[in-house]
Amino acid sequence: MNPTACLLVIGNEILSGRTQDVNVQYIARRLSETGITLSEVRIIPDIRTVIVRNVTEARAAYDNVFTTGGIGPTHDDITSACVAESFGVPWVHHPGTFRLLEAHFTPAEFNAARQRMATMPQGAVPIRNSVSVAPGFTMGNVHVMAGVPRIMRAMFEEVLPTLPHGTPVVSEAWHANGLYEGSLAAGLEMIQQRHPDIDIGSYPYRLDESSRGVCLLCKGTDAAGVKAASSAVRDLIERLGFTPQAGEPSKA
Amino acid sequence: MNPTACLLVIGNEILSGRTQDVNVQYIARRLSETGITLSEVRIIPDIRTVIVRNVTEARAAYDNVFTTGGIGPTHDDITSACVAESFGVPWVHHPGTFRLLEAHFTPAEFNAARQRMATMPQGAVPIRNSVSVAPGFTMGNVHVMAGVPRIMRAMFEEVLPTLPHGTPVVSEAWHANGLYEGSLAAGLEMIQQRHPDIDIGSYPYRLDESSRGVCLLCKGTDAAGVKAASSAVRDLIERLGFTPQAGEPSKA
Repeated sequence: MNPTACLLVIGNEILSGRTQDVNVQYIARRLSETGITLSEVRIIPDIRTVIVRNVTEARAAYDNVFTTGGIGPTHDDITSACVAESFGVPWVHHPGTFRLLEAHFTPAEFNAARQRMATMPQGAVPIRNSVSVAPGFTMGNVHVMAGVPRIMRAMFEEVLPTLPHGTPVVSEAWHANGLYEGSLAAGLEMIQQRHPDIDIGSYPYRLDESSRGVCLLCKGTDAAGVKAASSAVRDLIERLGFTPQAGEPSKA
Repeated sequence: MNPTACLLVIGNEILSGRTQDVNVQYIARRLSETGITLSEVRIIPDIRTVIVRNVTEARAAYDNVFTTGGIGPTHDDITSACVAESFGVPWVHHPGTFRLLEAHFTPAEFNAARQRMATMPQGAVPIRNSVSVAPGFTMGNVHVMAGVPRIMRAMFEEVLPTLPHGTPVVSEAWHANGLYEGSLAAGLEMIQQRHPDIDIGSYPYRLDESSRGVCLLCKGTDAAGVKAASSAVRDLIERLGFTPQAGEPSKA
């Protein structure tokens, strides 16, 4: 069994629809490639009690917890203090991070708000930020990252290689123009029953009025099993009188 | 207090990173405009026990629950049966939906898999699907919709006008090129303290190397309060020596 992960997206701007999240897909893909199962994502608001409760639940339920958002210098950045509260430890000055920030900013810039970014839960280990200096941190199995995608990615790529990982998920896809889900459901279910360890997904697509069909995706950690299921899917498409095309559909 | 909502995004394709979700932002925006607070989003896999548990938790905790995904004709479409299980009711043939689908498909097309889309939790009320006929449904306070964005939107717009709603959230934004969060944090916190009912968010942006800054968003259901907080934010930007620009930043 691969290790599991939960992602907590912290931010009113996602829940209000102001911002289109793009971090979920990036993290989901990279975890899948690394052999860590992303079991759940929760998008929650900047409310102290809600963040603390979710961090506490998630760190007990999953091997790894990632959080994005809420670690900047403004009043709505409360993730770090909430993680301290979840672990029941004080939220304390981190000397190494303070020196790092002090060296980066001019004395006039390095005001109270920016100094506050050097406060972390007691025992936290900073996550290097190669983009904008102020670090994230790891506390136990909780990895606290920025919400800005470029910064999040830099932090995530620092943490990922340090985590125990399992077997990468591999996948094979077929798609067929003009084929509909309802026509292949029975045959697909039989393939799924013969390959219970392979995750077979069926996804209708519609590139434009004349390019519609279904994409069938076989994935799992057993590469030979994926290949066998995928081959059965290709045969099913042919048997139904359609032309199987390898891979995901894409606009020409 | 506005009514609350939780969105359950059901689908392995989001958790594996195959698909970029776009439903969250649409639903979040429309709920905000309607005066329903989106309190939480959970993205969960196509696993029976996980879906049942999350539906049961969410329908107890929030006024409205929306689900997207997992209501098509294939073996991985299990949302409908899971909602029945959560409510402790049988999953039964729905005669009106059966007749609707029967009229839409040719006899050859209307196979067992497509007939299965006429099965719903006992007591469910169909949600019309103006795009591809097969309906969603409302069961208690749970609104079950398709995952395909075009179909989801059609179903969502059928349901939304039928729900009790509160006061729409209004917002005003200012942005300032060259201004950084760390420089305004102290002033912004004072404004937040003077306007506790207004949600003041601070969002760094970076359109390109030369267009970077921060966007400050005031929002809430009290339009006069939003205006007052927004005006204080504009003054703060000016006091710091920057030029407040109305609205969100956008690429030229």
